[in-house]
Amino acid sequence: MHTLTDHIGLYTDFYELTMAQSYFFTERIDDVATFDYFFRSTPFDSGYVVYAGLEELLSLITKFSYSQEDIDYLRKQGMKEEFLNYLKDFRFSGNIYSVKEGEIVFPNEPLLTVEANLIEAQLIESLILNYLNFQSLIATKARRIRDVAGERSFADFGLRRAQTLGSIHAARAAVIGGADSTSNTYAGMMYDIPVSGTQAHSWVQSFDDEIEAFRKYAEINPDNTVLLVDTYDTLKSGVPNAIKVAKEMEKQGHRLKAVRLDSGDLAYLSRKVRKMLNKAGLDYVGIVASNQLNERIIKSLIKEQGAKLDGFGVGTELATGQEDGALGGVYKLVESDGKPRLKISENVEKISLPCNKKLVRYFDEEGKFYRDGVLLRDQNPELTIFHPFHYHLNTDVSKLKYEILTEQVIKGGEICIGLRTLKEIKQYSLERFKQLSEEHKRFISPHTYKVGVAKDILDIRDKLIAEVEKDF
Amino acid sequence: MHTLTDHIGLYTDFYELTMAQSYFFTERIDDVATFDYFFRSTPFDSGYVVYAGLEELLSLITKFSYSQEDIDYLRKQGMKEEFLNYLKDFRFSGNIYSVKEGEIVFPNEPLLTVEANLIEAQLIESLILNYLNFQSLIATKARRIRDVAGERSFADFGLRRAQTLGSIHAARAAVIGGADSTSNTYAGMMYDIPVSGTQAHSWVQSFDDEIEAFRKYAEINPDNTVLLVDTYDTLKSGVPNAIKVAKEMEKQGHRLKAVRLDSGDLAYLSRKVRKMLNKAGLDYVGIVASNQLNERIIKSLIKEQGAKLDGFGVGTELATGQEDGALGGVYKLVESDGKPRLKISENVEKISLPCNKKLVRYFDEEGKFYRDGVLLRDQNPELTIFHPFHYHLNTDVSKLKYEILTEQVIKGGEICIGLRTLKEIKQYSLERFKQLSEEHKRFISPHTYKVGVAKDILDIRDKLIAEVEKDF
Repeated sequence: MHTLTDHIGLYTDFYELTMAQSYFFTERIDDVATFDYFFRSTPFDSGYVVYAGLEELLSLITKFSYSQEDIDYLRKQGMKEEFLNYLKDFRFSGNIYSVKEGEIVFPNEPLLTVEANLIEAQLIESLILNYLNFQSLIATKARRIRDVAGERSFADFGLRRAQTLGSIHAARAAVIGGADSTSNTYAGMMYDIPVSGTQAHSWVQSFDDEIEAFRKYAEINPDNTVLLVDTYDTLKSGVPNAIKVAKEMEKQGHRLKAVRLDSGDLAYLSRKVRKMLNKAGLDYVGIVASNQLNERIIKSLIKEQGAKLDGFGVGTELATGQEDGALGGVYKLVESDGKPRLKISENVEKISLPCNKKLVRYFDEEGKFYRDGVLLRDQNPELTIFHPFHYHLNTDVSKLKYEILTEQVIKGGEICIGLRTLKEIKQYSLERFKQLSEEHKRFISPHTYKVGVAKDILDIRDKLIAEVEKDF
Repeated sequence: MHTLTDHIGLYTDFYELTMAQSYFFTERIDDVATFDYFFRSTPFDSGYVVYAGLEELLSLITKFSYSQEDIDYLRKQGMKEEFLNYLKDFRFSGNIYSVKEGEIVFPNEPLLTVEANLIEAQLIESLILNYLNFQSLIATKARRIRDVAGERSFADFGLRRAQTLGSIHAARAAVIGGADSTSNTYAGMMYDIPVSGTQAHSWVQSFDDEIEAFRKYAEINPDNTVLLVDTYDTLKSGVPNAIKVAKEMEKQGHRLKAVRLDSGDLAYLSRKVRKMLNKAGLDYVGIVASNQLNERIIKSLIKEQGAKLDGFGVGTELATGQEDGALGGVYKLVESDGKPRLKISENVEKISLPCNKKLVRYFDEEGKFYRDGVLLRDQNPELTIFHPFHYHLNTDVSKLKYEILTEQVIKGGEICIGLRTLKEIKQYSLERFKQLSEEHKRFISPHTYKVGVAKDILDIRDKLIAEVEKDF
């Protein structure tokens, strides 16, 4: 079986290779190009996005190369010997700037910038989009769930509904977003994520009696028993049996950890179950829920319906990033051959910002995020930033505290930052999220976080636009 | 970097492992269990599903095992030595029955049945669900696109929006569903899928003039030039420049293959562009389109808006299976310890069918699919099949031609069918699709294909249900 890292140079849209070959034969190998990764709108009508996928992506970029087998394959696709010869020694040797993985980010911000020769910058495009788009989508989804779940436990259960191996990165991104654990054992090993999961319906079904199934499980796993109580009838059978077993466990000096609800009306059942458990003196036994959950359902359960739930397993909607299923991040040429470049669009809002840029965050007196500014790479952050189209809307941010969010992460092909553990990225992300005002976190019509642009960039853009006449 | 095949035994939900360990310690290793894979409803409100992912899945099941590193990892998760010792030599040694990959299938049909000891059957559950759910989702999406695209070309462009490595299986499944090619070079190599893609906006942007960009590309790729004409202005700049270059190519004895539209109103633009090309004597130059397409948009473009399009590149919606994003296939215990098993549900429609079963397809006089029947494994297909809940609805199919769709695919842990190439699976699937009546292919309210059940199975189910009293 082929494994990705052995053939990572082929993990690209074929047009990147045909373009790369064409750059090669136009003798434009040494042209330096700058590309920006950004997205134009958030998924889930969210007020923010959690930027994820970066650190793993950087490692893959440093491995981006072509094996003999890859070269042979490309030859069969009609690629030319001189270019194949060039690919033999291919390595990414450029520079990459990026905001930190886990950062809270917004539409139309240059999040990652690649400075390299045209061929190098082009060949890694698909990999960048593939890793950042998906992981940012899932980290954002997970953050929304974490935001409503509060201190309750929250586990990724998405393996069975994910896009095959995408499940692995879904688990990673879910943790950055705030998940405590994953059911995906492979992802658990790969990223040192706590793994969770105790029993399924099949365990209960495979015994003649539910209580026998519960008893056996508790006997073998006295320190980690969560009983699934809905196989036959939650209130008439599952919970009474769980209570009996919990009492038997107490006699052995053990404690039932929780019961799990996986069907029925979770609000109604959880309130009933809480009462039954408490009445039996089992206040310490938790109630966890699963079954087609998402952040809106969890919010309603907790905030509106008084559900008595201590934890959630979220599968399908988390791992597939529903309702949207994709973050539409793009990778656009902003400078080449020393000239600012632009993609004109009939849709004015889709016109990209030219030039090699950086992202700066300004803070208010309370230390909350106030504005983000898109500036030229070497520009002094003490300035006035402008609405990208309506210049009478502008803010003087020159007196505010700021942070330059974009840092160099790859220098001459080598990673030049210290890579962090997943736990550290998660922690960073959760801390940053606290600095985002509540009105941007609303599920319905969140307040738009304002991202301004330096006037110098807008002037260059407007000049480029003026050069291209277009029909109205 | 870890690679999946080296750690395939960990590619499972953690509760499969905790249950497996618990079965081990209850000395139920030798209990034989039977599990069915099936789904309860179709994605996209589709009248059918294209079953995909099987043959690759079977190969992975035969490799399912635990390395020393895996064992060490599980030890750290608190698993016990005796069980870890058992896992050291773990191999799947049971039987698997399945319908053929590429088959047209329907809700509540046992598509894949695992007969094995409880532990083996349980440990491979997540892998089965992960591979079949996703690939069947995408193959179905692709088939819907192929169904409306007719003979036009149709390429998978999903890499940049897919769930990271899920892109690889998305490409595979898209081909089974009917895609001609993929932009994903890695998937192209892995599955011998034609790769497609020529140029992006960045190519055009990186030159000072659009026509220079077109001319250079055509010079270097004279036999495979598709020009992207919307970077500046499709009708005023892109197409006139493409026509000039096509004429220059003619003088060199070459032909421009196509122009690509990636923005704007595709119906309006394609009609205009067709006229401009024809007027220039370039009837042979095709027009292909991309940009957030799906089967409904393509249908509307072709059937309602008279768009002049010869091919489509479909990305996000194909690779992520929108609007649904998941096929909700499940894996349920139907027999163990020689006894039929059942998952009762408060939702009556969700009660599973017990027993070791097979799937039979009956044909009408024209050779079209007429009814499917769910029968006991050894039952004679000449019988009457019943609606699963309303028994006055039943059909005598005893005189009809039939095929037993379920065949044994793994025997004692070994694959016992000849694996086919992806091209063969695609061909099989497209042939079968022709036998499905048009009314099941409609996008809006497709006619429900009828799946009946042998009365013997229903009697056993009803007896089991009666044993469990439930509140109403």
